Amino acid sequence: MNEIICRFIPARIAYTGEQLHSHWAYRAHDLLGDSAVAFIGPCDVKPEFMKDVEDLKAGSRIYSEEMLHFIIEHFDVDLDRAVLRQRLLMALMAEALNARLGRPAVARRGSDLYDGDAKLTVSIASVSPVSALIHAGINISSRNTPVKTRGLGDYGIAPREFAEEILAAYAAEGKSAWRARCKVRGCG
Amino acid sequence: MNEIICRFIPARIAYTGEQLHSHWAYRAHDLLGDSAVAFIGPCDVKPEFMKDVEDLKAGSRIYSEEMLHFIIEHFDVDLDRAVLRQRLLMALMAEALNARLGRPAVARRGSDLYDGDAKLTVSIASVSPVSALIHAGINISSRNTPVKTRGLGDYGIAPREFAEEILAAYAAEGKSAWRARCKVRGCG
Amino acid sequence: MNEIICRFIPARIAYTGEQLHSHWAYRAHDLLGDSAVAFIGPCDVKPEFMKDVEDLKAGSRIYSEEMLHFIIEHFDVDLDRAVLRQRLLMALMAEALNARLGRPAVARRGSDLYDGDAKLTVSIASVSPVSALIHAGINISSRNTPVKTRGLGDYGIAPREFAEEILAAYAAEGKSAWRARCKVRGCG
Amino acid sequence: MNEIICRFIPARIAYTGEQLHSHWAYRAHDLLGDSAVAFIGPCDVKPEFMKDVEDLKAGSRIYSEEMLHFIIEHFDVDLDRAVLRQRLLMALMAEALNARLGRPAVARRGSDLYDGDAKLTVSIASVSPVSALIHAGINISSRNTPVKTRGLGDYGIAPREFAEEILAAYAAEGKSAWRARCKVRGCG
Amino acid sequence: MNEIICRFIPARIAYTGEQLHSHWAYRAHDLLGDSAVAFIGPCDVKPEFMKDVEDLKAGSRIYSEEMLHFIIEHFDVDLDRAVLRQRLLMALMAEALNARLGRPAVARRGSDLYDGDAKLTVSIASVSPVSALIHAGINISSRNTPVKTRGLGDYGIAPREFAEEILAAYAAEGKSAWRARCKVRGCG
Amino acid sequence: MNEIICRFIPARIAYTGEQLHSHWAYRAHDLLGDSAVAFIGPCDVKPEFMKDVEDLKAGSRIYSEEMLHFIIEHFDVDLDRAVLRQRLLMALMAEALNARLGRPAVARRGSDLYDGDAKLTVSIASVSPVSALIHAGINISSRNTPVKTRGLGDYGIAPREFAEEILAAYAAEGKSAWRARCKVRGCG
Repeated sequence: MNEIICRFIPARIAYTGEQLHSHWAYRAHDLLGDSAVAFIGPCDVKPEFMKDVEDLKAGSRIYSEEMLHFIIEHFDVDLDRAVLRQRLLMALMAEALNARLGRPAVARRGSDLYDGDAKLTVSIASVSPVSALIHAGINISSRNTPVKTRGLGDYGIAPREFAEEILAAYAAEGKSAWRARCKVRGCG
Repeated sequence: MNEIICRFIPARIAYTGEQLHSHWAYRAHDLLGDSAVAFIGPCDVKPEFMKDVEDLKAGSRIYSEEMLHFIIEHFDVDLDRAVLRQRLLMALMAEALNARLGRPAVARRGSDLYDGDAKLTVSIASVSPVSALIHAGINISSRNTPVKTRGLGDYGIAPREFAEEILAAYAAEGKSAWRARCKVRGCG
Repeated sequence: MNEIICRFIPARIAYTGEQLHSHWAYRAHDLLGDSAVAFIGPCDVKPEFMKDVEDLKAGSRIYSEEMLHFIIEHFDVDLDRAVLRQRLLMALMAEALNARLGRPAVARRGSDLYDGDAKLTVSIASVSPVSALIHAGINISSRNTPVKTRGLGDYGIAPREFAEEILAAYAAEGKSAWRARCKVRGCG
Repeated sequence: MNEIICRFIPARIAYTGEQLHSHWAYRAHDLLGDSAVAFIGPCDVKPEFMKDVEDLKAGSRIYSEEMLHFIIEHFDVDLDRAVLRQRLLMALMAEALNARLGRPAVARRGSDLYDGDAKLTVSIASVSPVSALIHAGINISSRNTPVKTRGLGDYGIAPREFAEEILAAYAAEGKSAWRARCKVRGCG
Repeated sequence: MNEIICRFIPARIAYTGEQLHSHWAYRAHDLLGDSAVAFIGPCDVKPEFMKDVEDLKAGSRIYSEEMLHFIIEHFDVDLDRAVLRQRLLMALMAEALNARLGRPAVARRGSDLYDGDAKLTVSIASVSPVSALIHAGINISSRNTPVKTRGLGDYGIAPREFAEEILAAYAAEGKSAWRARCKVRGCG
Repeated sequence: MNEIICRFIPARIAYTGEQLHSHWAYRAHDLLGDSAVAFIGPCDVKPEFMKDVEDLKAGSRIYSEEMLHFIIEHFDVDLDRAVLRQRLLMALMAEALNARLGRPAVARRGSDLYDGDAKLTVSIASVSPVSALIHAGINISSRNTPVKTRGLGDYGIAPREFAEEILAAYAAEGKSAWRARCKVRGCG
């Protein structure tokens, strides 16, 4: 795990799924290397950019009026690692939310976060020919979503501050995982 | 990620580090394949079995009077994945603890759990020539430990019940991660 | 090697090469994970779906009036392993055929089966961005094929029964290979 | 898969398990690179060189008065591929035996060959720190073996000639698998 | 590293970037397996075939009136190795140039060669779904290039002779690297 | 390729081969992560630490009165990449030597440097259970070596200055190779 370049993009960006593409962070934001980018905007994934075949089969709509989005790219073409990293990212978000709320309201189930039966997130991990990519979106608004949801707004959490906390936590996780990997001996 | 065979071993076992060895679950408990085993016993890792070079350099003692131990083996020789899985295991423990406590008392920092400045766990991920191995121990007793600790006993949590919850959660995590990996398309 | 989900599809399907695509088994037959699917139908591979560049260069036609088809998908993007698995599949078919015939009439040469100079099969192994895929077709009819062929019909073998035997054998092979991999120690 | 250097060693060698070691072919026979070596001699594997933990647990004796042995080394540290190659080797042996016998007497089950309930072979695939290694031994004599066995002698097959046929077939398999891998396109 | 098939193509070929495609050597020149091909012709890479995103972002033109081109394909989908091999190829070119010039005029910086501030080369390493590919072009003519350049013509070096020397050196490098890999033991 | 931590160690260290061990840089010099360390001292490799089986078979002595040593560790267990990196390191040394000498006196052949028939270096690349390791030693003194040699002293080159130049060049190579890998798109 290399150093992860983090960036909150203040401009609003509508997430359509096109952003889950190799080098999006480099092309759009000049971030070269492993990166974690966050931005705010609506979410409406076009079917041609839906990566979860279960959603495609079901004709699901991945929609939210307002989300905080994370796009993460690791230049390591390993889908198993990407899925594990995605879940750690979601765990970091749950930890951060619960710490702010002062109660364990938010639970991670697989790659999604829930508050009771309300879904807070959408998320996917995939691979490009040269990298692995993660999208995670957490609702800001919980209005007009296809399923029952909750969002940062419902908790009174400021999205940008939350984004910057998560970006820093994800980068720190990557760094400490790398250190752990470099200081362990093999076993028999 | 293959199906993970789970087993709580009722017999007390003193963890010395020798258990962090390929095929320990198969040799000692006849579990063939990816496995997650839990047992209760003291922890006193012999230097020759210490895998964290930082601990070796520091001459640290890895000691606890009474711990709940997890030994996990995946037949996939990839240390990066093992480190990620280890952290997910710790996240599962933190989630389970906080859910029981009803407050986010326990925080994961890297591969360890803390309650304030008290350390709850020891943990390592390593590779054998044919597999990856994880040891995680969570204190039951917090007495006579080299650093300030807390343990399941301090929270009034029954170790075996907790162990079985974590084993089931880890196996479910592995299964859902595998499903996620199998239903995603590549991206551009 | 994970558990391989096996399925014989009773409906006739014309094999055009389009089926050699990631998630075909999931999309068309709701099989999620490593899978081996068999069905009966003609074979006429469209050039845009031909994966063997040698065939493309030669302008070969991959054609049969009636074949028993196998489509296998492993969520492990390793072409070398896929080629080895493909050959084991063909070896299983040769073994099953010869056992039924009571004489070693069918010989495997690489990834194809022959009875003397008559070709019984077409076969390819490839990789998608997220998986490895194998197609193997064994003639039922040997009429009107571009080269001299023989088929299950010439041997009086019922395709569906044969298909189910091969599916079971392939799944058992995968399971026993996984067990073998999990019980061996490394060497010096 | 690189070119596989083949060599039948005329000198008798007692197989003890020590030969299943990286660079044995290079050290003992000056064969540098991927290699397949055959020789004749007794088989009596010392427990410290037994690699199958199931045998170790059972206290099995791996013994034969006279065997034809194959030691194969690939400089590719991938145990899954090694297990697949091992099974292809066994399939090649079964095919060669049945072709000689004119009837499908010999069946491969996993990594072993059987004639009815008589076992013909012992076999293992493992990895060293720099390579993958396969041992396969096929009985010449079937006397005094721990289980019911049959051997090349029972079939009137000359071991050296058989060895050279199998070595050539294994090298040809490797070459044709490599060609197959190099001429296939990816799929969607 | 398998044997690398080398070929100088006498016919002039205009390099447009389309040649950086899996199986180009096999389709166009019937070279099956790892290969290194050289030819002479202009260079004008169409944007849709530009692989360096930095060039795409900058709208760079990759242009030369006359270049000696190398297209290398390894059937090993590992971009890190491809980048290392590309740099070794460039080092081989620098060594060959300086040996001919009798002075260390040419310096390698990353994947390019320079004579003072004049650029001699363009180069890229990428991966296809089944292989890794390298293009390296060294100017023959240094006229009308977008940046200050030098070329083989300026040094009075015959391109074909130079090409054949480099092809042979690259193949020898591959062979000796493979031998080195096969004769080394692991360490602790 | 992660950031490579570089360090010249002023203390004299006798190279015995024991230093080619995982975590040597961390244990002895507190450098955690990918590292390149240089030091000065004699070279006399004990047979138990010789990693080149060709040397072991030949009973070669790897000896020099005074060498500049480089020990490089990458936490990436891939021997092919390690061999390629080793050769790039040697190319960097040859480039640096020839630039200083003002003539292309030093030629790299595989993993060694020569000045005519005089050998300047010894070098090996290997893997530990958790990393890849490279040792390269370049003679300072050329006296009393088992074969004809030349050394930095013969060229009037100050070892420490040379060491620091090479360490910086190797780290820059790693960084630019990583950037190259991160900005390239896949191809068809």
